[in-house]
Amino acid sequence: MPCNVLTEDTINRHALKCKYGVRGEIFQRAQELTQQGHPITFTSVGNPHQLKQQPLTFVRQVVALCAAPFLMDDPVIVAAFPEDAVARAKRYLKALRGGLGSYQDSKGNPELCSEICDFIEHRDAGYRPDPVNIFMTNGASEGVRVILQTVIRNESDGILVPIPQYPLYSASIALYGGQLVGYHLDEEHGWGLSMDDLGMALQSAKVKGINVRAIVFINPGNPTGTCLQAYQLQNLVKFAYTNRLVLLADEVYQENVYGSTPFTSCYKVLCDMGAPYSSSQELVSFHTVSKGAAGECGLRGGYFHLHNVDEKVRANLYKLVSINLSPSVPGMVALGCYVNPPKPGDASYDLHVRERQGIIDSLRRRANMMSDAFNSIPGISCQPVDGSMYAFPKIRIPQSVVQAARASGKAPDALYCLELLENAHIAATPGSSFEQEDGSFHFRTNILPDESEFASIIGRFQDAHMSFLRKYGGLEESAEKHSLSAVPVMSKL
Amino acid sequence: MPCNVLTEDTINRHALKCKYGVRGEIFQRAQELTQQGHPITFTSVGNPHQLKQQPLTFVRQVVALCAAPFLMDDPVIVAAFPEDAVARAKRYLKALRGGLGSYQDSKGNPELCSEICDFIEHRDAGYRPDPVNIFMTNGASEGVRVILQTVIRNESDGILVPIPQYPLYSASIALYGGQLVGYHLDEEHGWGLSMDDLGMALQSAKVKGINVRAIVFINPGNPTGTCLQAYQLQNLVKFAYTNRLVLLADEVYQENVYGSTPFTSCYKVLCDMGAPYSSSQELVSFHTVSKGAAGECGLRGGYFHLHNVDEKVRANLYKLVSINLSPSVPGMVALGCYVNPPKPGDASYDLHVRERQGIIDSLRRRANMMSDAFNSIPGISCQPVDGSMYAFPKIRIPQSVVQAARASGKAPDALYCLELLENAHIAATPGSSFEQEDGSFHFRTNILPDESEFASIIGRFQDAHMSFLRKYGGLEESAEKHSLSAVPVMSKL
Repeated sequence: MPCNVLTEDTINRHALKCKYGVRGEIFQRAQELTQQGHPITFTSVGNPHQLKQQPLTFVRQVVALCAAPFLMDDPVIVAAFPEDAVARAKRYLKALRGGLGSYQDSKGNPELCSEICDFIEHRDAGYRPDPVNIFMTNGASEGVRVILQTVIRNESDGILVPIPQYPLYSASIALYGGQLVGYHLDEEHGWGLSMDDLGMALQSAKVKGINVRAIVFINPGNPTGTCLQAYQLQNLVKFAYTNRLVLLADEVYQENVYGSTPFTSCYKVLCDMGAPYSSSQELVSFHTVSKGAAGECGLRGGYFHLHNVDEKVRANLYKLVSINLSPSVPGMVALGCYVNPPKPGDASYDLHVRERQGIIDSLRRRANMMSDAFNSIPGISCQPVDGSMYAFPKIRIPQSVVQAARASGKAPDALYCLELLENAHIAATPGSSFEQEDGSFHFRTNILPDESEFASIIGRFQDAHMSFLRKYGGLEESAEKHSLSAVPVMSKL
Repeated sequence: MPCNVLTEDTINRHALKCKYGVRGEIFQRAQELTQQGHPITFTSVGNPHQLKQQPLTFVRQVVALCAAPFLMDDPVIVAAFPEDAVARAKRYLKALRGGLGSYQDSKGNPELCSEICDFIEHRDAGYRPDPVNIFMTNGASEGVRVILQTVIRNESDGILVPIPQYPLYSASIALYGGQLVGYHLDEEHGWGLSMDDLGMALQSAKVKGINVRAIVFINPGNPTGTCLQAYQLQNLVKFAYTNRLVLLADEVYQENVYGSTPFTSCYKVLCDMGAPYSSSQELVSFHTVSKGAAGECGLRGGYFHLHNVDEKVRANLYKLVSINLSPSVPGMVALGCYVNPPKPGDASYDLHVRERQGIIDSLRRRANMMSDAFNSIPGISCQPVDGSMYAFPKIRIPQSVVQAARASGKAPDALYCLELLENAHIAATPGSSFEQEDGSFHFRTNILPDESEFASIIGRFQDAHMSFLRKYGGLEESAEKHSLSAVPVMSKL
């Protein structure tokens, strides 16, 4: 019998080589445990609705009416919806020509692209993009991929990516056959951006013959939770300009800001800087309805915004997105509601603002609780979570464990996360999936569990951590730094 | 000022090289005309809801209730929905853990994958796949792309594709850097499959040093409308087995069948054939909720089904789909309703059957009207439309036009379609976008316009065709074959 055409030895080697740890061994084991009836707390993925964050009512009213326009034929049902939701659904249905079931323009419905431009104009002090430069996508990830696929030509092309990074970047760069050129964020200074480290990373890539073509930054940071200040963005722009790099601005967490640094878009910074930056620096910014207060991960709404990108390149991007015909139309509708929320005086305004603010305020409390709790546990330190949905604490792993893990072919922090999953039923993601400084170990957890469950989750976490140390003999090392009492942690919650 | 990093000369050359004509020049010009207020009939894309096909009520009731579960708290609203739609929405909401806004497993929600297996088991006389082999996707296209990306390793790898083909294949193969190896369908015999032509195509690719790894077939055919019979599928299976090719079965139009040949899945044929075929021939089958009676293009629901694919390869496919996190969840829900429709005795059963049958019956009438009408027009001949949503008529283009078009850098049938768009406001797609036998010219039109508009569209078409011939001097050539009277056409409608 002939053997298979497709085996691990005979498939595309880039497909084989790329890694995607967020949905790797630990996530899959967590899925198995769930199917076996164990209640697992999924802190591995930024999936807020799965952890009980409620959808925004206005968004869902509009999506539901667009899904079932015949509901609007029944006056009793119409009366159960606020006027502005009904009006919005009618407007979108008209614009969508055939409704939710109809392919839209492959870069998104033109009326919705224009609504995104209104949003950007309002957010960025009057700088308004041309709708032709807005491409709606199935979540932001799809946009990142189509851009990387266009930028990367061969194995000599490199992309600067922060370390730690979000594995979408490492996986896509590997899949498209390019080189990830990491620049380290400075953990001891709140995962800050160091222009010196960035310069060195670029220099050492050049020495290796890598042609670095673009730089990714994530603001607010994933997994770091750091918010960049305007002057840091200016430095990034100057760096990209001087070194002829396309700027790729992952700004999907722009609404998830909890500290004192407000979100500033790279587009605004670039426009504020004036020529030559504003008129020639190539920038692609990514955004989504999957994060923020909406958290509509499953609807797959997102967009990218091109600035100073050559129009022939734009035409090629259009061709590439056309192969998939149309992004998700429910995602477009949800994104429309997000970028153009109810205004003062609209029937839904008060509820919408209350819901939206309630979610962000609660996330802020959880961000603080999470970093405080981790910092009270022996052997763990955690930078402040000023933005995004994650904490990325550092764990001190005893040398014996490091050796044992490596002997068994596992990353030490993967072993740690597996034990955490089996013993505390918490699914976190090992730092090794995000890249990290050699010899350091971390894990990523989201800050999304319901506030009412926080104390119990942290308690379970702490117990599992202590038994890990007891099992592998790291208690004394940790005791040097911290008291072992659980009391300070629990009292904060 | 430094010039752009990204220009047509400096982007990925595969991205530059790939073409996607369905959304090309004619489609874009049609979009422009629409925005200028001209009512364009879009026959270029299989987008039924845009052409007034109504969504299936049950599907939309379930999607709407899943979008806005709070509707189910109001007894008045609940009373407006059939019981089975409410029960289905509740079951899906439970299975989805967080609802429509929640990322699902990257290969689709397990309960919905299992429902797809029930559907296949019922369709294919009891052959039931393991749910682990079902991957839900954003429409079928995404699945085709991830498979081609995995199969194609370098420029020596080839994929057998029918000519004419659906440009998803030519575009994706170019994008992933492989070779399209075309095998011609036999137009004079209803676009039939000729095993001799297939063998010759493979042989001539081998002579060129191309390593052919997979064969695509589209059943029912796009753009040809042909339905394959079981014995033809057996021949394909034997051919793939003998020549060590992965079978890629594009079966997205399986519900769109109008003639006497019923749809038979390749999976059933393969299983019926027994060992060694059933136990070792690699098969990937694609399906979607975008076509058929549902026509839910915008919700992006689809799946692929692996059979005899190595489990390590499957694990790699899982990793690749994970990078995009989750397919559209509204698409999953719609697909669930499609594969598991209301059963006899359910509250929605009668209406659902009536709607579904009404759509297919109407499509059958339109398929016949369309081919009859084309065959009555001088200079046009059209094979029967037994399935799918398209006709692919052959047009006799005068030699003078061929030369003039080529001199202006256009394909002759693209020139024809542009004139059709400008003069009749009908957007069709030139045959050159689908590949066609050298020296022959075609266009693809869907059969989707509303029945009430058929006569007027065909009338407009005929007028534009005749003025094309008058303008470019093809009248005498055509008159040899046909009478010029429009009467026989109109009288059929």
